[in-house]
Amino acid sequence: MKFCSSCGSSDIEHKIPEGDNRLRHCCPRCGMVFYENPKIVTGCVAQWQDKILMCKRAIEPRVGTWTLPAGFMENHETLQEAAARETFEEATARTSNLELFAIYNLPHISQVYVMFKADVLDGEASSGIESLETEFMDESDIPWSDLSFPIMTETLKLYFEDRKHGEFSLHTGEIMRDHERAIQITRY
Amino acid sequence: MKFCSSCGSSDIEHKIPEGDNRLRHCCPRCGMVFYENPKIVTGCVAQWQDKILMCKRAIEPRVGTWTLPAGFMENHETLQEAAARETFEEATARTSNLELFAIYNLPHISQVYVMFKADVLDGEASSGIESLETEFMDESDIPWSDLSFPIMTETLKLYFEDRKHGEFSLHTGEIMRDHERAIQITRY
Repeated sequence: MKFCSSCGSSDIEHKIPEGDNRLRHCCPRCGMVFYENPKIVTGCVAQWQDKILMCKRAIEPRVGTWTLPAGFMENHETLQEAAARETFEEATARTSNLELFAIYNLPHISQVYVMFKADVLDGEASSGIESLETEFMDESDIPWSDLSFPIMTETLKLYFEDRKHGEFSLHTGEIMRDHERAIQITRY
Repeated sequence: MKFCSSCGSSDIEHKIPEGDNRLRHCCPRCGMVFYENPKIVTGCVAQWQDKILMCKRAIEPRVGTWTLPAGFMENHETLQEAAARETFEEATARTSNLELFAIYNLPHISQVYVMFKADVLDGEASSGIESLETEFMDESDIPWSDLSFPIMTETLKLYFEDRKHGEFSLHTGEIMRDHERAIQITRY
């Protein structure tokens, strides 16, 4: 942030405003304080018979790796609408029966992932603009070494563990990078 | 948004960028696109014995009405840390045993509420800077006609319903304003 988006001043300060306890971008000229907050990423473990809908990413980051359909929640939608929209945009798949499945904190990048379990309506899927390929995969087809993000690996592991036990429940946890930048996964 | 926060240009357009499907604030001079996303509000139904910790708001909106301690999640924290922090900031109460209790969409104001059930560590609470008073209330003490927001009424109703049944579970739903600006609450 180099300029105030309200008054155009280039005199932006990074300081703790009076009555606050965190650093914020502040404009001394017009008094605006600019808050930044975590973003929600939401998507689906979308099932068709015994298979899961996977997407090969056509966009950065991690082009060419495999992911569950997911993306940033937009203003004026619900979590469920956002997860279904992302599944449609990335894989042209229509979903129903969305159930909360995993809620994970990623505090190092200020994101909260909210993943749903869902059914694909008619087994139809194809590549949306953000995907190179889509595929309904059996557990044995999952390219574990070629997944896009640790949260996708974790969500898929939880899903197949639950499926083996014959019962799905809501999972919570966090994924962090430690000081050596190694990924640490904690299940609450 | 009147000025580009990256280059200072006053020539901000509100348009759908190429490859996108939503209106965004865009700067034609430097090419920046400014995304806005929903915010997470999180807090606690904080229990001490049979009582619930309530706070009388010292700040706008709704000064002087009663609320559960809750507020905006900040960058680089987890949902659980944010809920505990808000409970401490508003009521100087330390909490433990946080459990997800209600996840509600408020799409008309682009917020997602994530409310936890928690125990107050030692029954200690007092007014933080954002509260005029704090009080541990029995169900019969709750000032139902003087609560701050519909989400607080809904969360308290769910809590006391669950308590009557002797079992707490995770609740999901949405709160909307319809075209006549009347509040509509849907439990999923």
